[in-house]
Amino acid sequence: MLDNEKITLAHGAGGRVMQELISKRILSQFSSDILEKFNIEVSLADLDDSAVVNDIVFTTDSHTVKPLFFPGGDIGSLSVAGTINDIAVMGVEPLGLSCAFVLEEGFPISELDRIITSMGTSSKTAGVPILTGDTKVVERGSVEKMFINTSGIGKRTEQLDKNIEIVKKYRKFEGRWLKDSNLNPGDKIILTGSVGDHGIALLSYREGYGFETELQSDVWPLNKMLQATISVGGIVAMKDPTRGGLANTLNEWSEKSGVGIKIDEQLIPVKPAVHAACEMLGMDPLTIGNEGKAVIGVVPELAEDVLKAVKGFTEGAEAAIIGEVKAQKEQKGVVMETLMGGRRIVDAPAGDPVPRIC
Amino acid sequence: MLDNEKITLAHGAGGRVMQELISKRILSQFSSDILEKFNIEVSLADLDDSAVVNDIVFTTDSHTVKPLFFPGGDIGSLSVAGTINDIAVMGVEPLGLSCAFVLEEGFPISELDRIITSMGTSSKTAGVPILTGDTKVVERGSVEKMFINTSGIGKRTEQLDKNIEIVKKYRKFEGRWLKDSNLNPGDKIILTGSVGDHGIALLSYREGYGFETELQSDVWPLNKMLQATISVGGIVAMKDPTRGGLANTLNEWSEKSGVGIKIDEQLIPVKPAVHAACEMLGMDPLTIGNEGKAVIGVVPELAEDVLKAVKGFTEGAEAAIIGEVKAQKEQKGVVMETLMGGRRIVDAPAGDPVPRIC
Repeated sequence: MLDNEKITLAHGAGGRVMQELISKRILSQFSSDILEKFNIEVSLADLDDSAVVNDIVFTTDSHTVKPLFFPGGDIGSLSVAGTINDIAVMGVEPLGLSCAFVLEEGFPISELDRIITSMGTSSKTAGVPILTGDTKVVERGSVEKMFINTSGIGKRTEQLDKNIEIVKKYRKFEGRWLKDSNLNPGDKIILTGSVGDHGIALLSYREGYGFETELQSDVWPLNKMLQATISVGGIVAMKDPTRGGLANTLNEWSEKSGVGIKIDEQLIPVKPAVHAACEMLGMDPLTIGNEGKAVIGVVPELAEDVLKAVKGFTEGAEAAIIGEVKAQKEQKGVVMETLMGGRRIVDAPAGDPVPRIC
Repeated sequence: MLDNEKITLAHGAGGRVMQELISKRILSQFSSDILEKFNIEVSLADLDDSAVVNDIVFTTDSHTVKPLFFPGGDIGSLSVAGTINDIAVMGVEPLGLSCAFVLEEGFPISELDRIITSMGTSSKTAGVPILTGDTKVVERGSVEKMFINTSGIGKRTEQLDKNIEIVKKYRKFEGRWLKDSNLNPGDKIILTGSVGDHGIALLSYREGYGFETELQSDVWPLNKMLQATISVGGIVAMKDPTRGGLANTLNEWSEKSGVGIKIDEQLIPVKPAVHAACEMLGMDPLTIGNEGKAVIGVVPELAEDVLKAVKGFTEGAEAAIIGEVKAQKEQKGVVMETLMGGRRIVDAPAGDPVPRIC
């Protein structure tokens, strides 16, 4: 890159441009010899949802969603659920969150109260406490209303150990963690519900398209459902398809695991309002961010059992097995069989089709 | 408070107004029954530098310093050192940090590179890795250049256990952690170096007062020095006097421990440039934020030994015993014997005399 290059929205969109920023500019400075003296099993270089050190799962997210209040949620519920989900997809139990506010001078305290109440409610729903915090206020114009950073920690459970023992009955498995690089040919892909709800509800509300009258964001903490799912066993990887949507998640899995992934369009739940909005706006629902969904990779022998466990929860009622993992020699990248009977390559979006959704 | 009340700069200044915001509005929503099922030994309600759950120390800080580059440091070194210090003052070993950027569209990548390099250097100096991260980009005008959140985790060490055993040889001590509420009458107060360097260097550079030619910020990770100090034993509390300065730290200790604190002005190191700037600006050096200093409460029998250990480090070369803890019946709050031979009450500042210093 040249010296006069500038940050663009795509650098923060969760897609390919952001991955390049991280891998070329950040990892070279942050990785170092000091890593060796620590017991780090998942590091920054893995680009997973969380890191793991000394069996502690650790993750962070800054939330800049616009507007602060949207159909189905607000920046408070989003920040709590988002960080809980990043921990929960590692297959562990969230122990607690931090909460750091950056507030604009003049921000109405009544709105802050609503957001704090929403964070408290989400925290109680999930059963995950907010343990520590920070508050900064900057002058008018230095930040747009407010941003929230939530970081979180989680602990390894016996259920995760047992889950991995079960995986090993069926196939070879390296390591002790659910990582993006764990998929093998034959594994089944489960999606826990419809895609695009959060991004489209938010976009539609922000721009006044009107679809939000029949559509709400899916902001929801998934830890209880995912803990129950882990107890079934056979799970090799989990991920929440936020920025860049399902397309981004599956491409990350495909690249990091060195496998192909085949999915079937007719098996992927998409709500009518999301479908209609995407048609009108020329968007692909697979690239739209979600805040209450997970993608689960599972050995084929246990796919139906895991699906049943997920469907036992309200937040997983629409879950489906949407595809499976292929050997790279058989298929490269992510490919979808379309409703029309054709096949199309599902690329990771370079940027984010809907900015400021989280 | 009324419905039309707005956030002011004082709400984020680390002083009394911020404490009220937290205790009245946040704690009521965030504390709940779910806390009981977790092994939380230091919670949000303690308002300490970090929380403790399952023996994991956990802390967060959002950094909005202005300007991004200043004499002696930048937002990168500040965010790494600041979070490491919040963990280190709990008497534990930092295990790692998270790093979440919020970047303004159009921010020069060359400046981001400088900041990332600075974070990497600070991380290596301290021997504490950056484990996980997040990058968000918002439209031009939605944030002033960039903010960084760094959260961190730390683990309890044998040295901390031994330190507390040693304390118990000399006096009664409750719990297993170094907390703001641990001080007893008779404890000595050690300050590890001169006060006001960071806030005055930054303010002077920002406003063009010229004092920064002979003054640099003290941004520095203190974990190695504080670990060595803990190994001496007898320490009951530690804190880094950031926003609100030494005045705020000592008042928090006084309130939470239910004790008086007496300090001696002639024992408190203040650099000539800080003294001159404070005279000119009508500021009190005790209320100015620091980024590379710690205040240590220690049983009197070991105060000289702890002082010697601190002075063995470059960053502690100017350390001094600056006062001692009194029973409340003898003295309320924080009182300083002045250079003129008088006594004055040292109040916690309501807001921050220098905004945007961290």
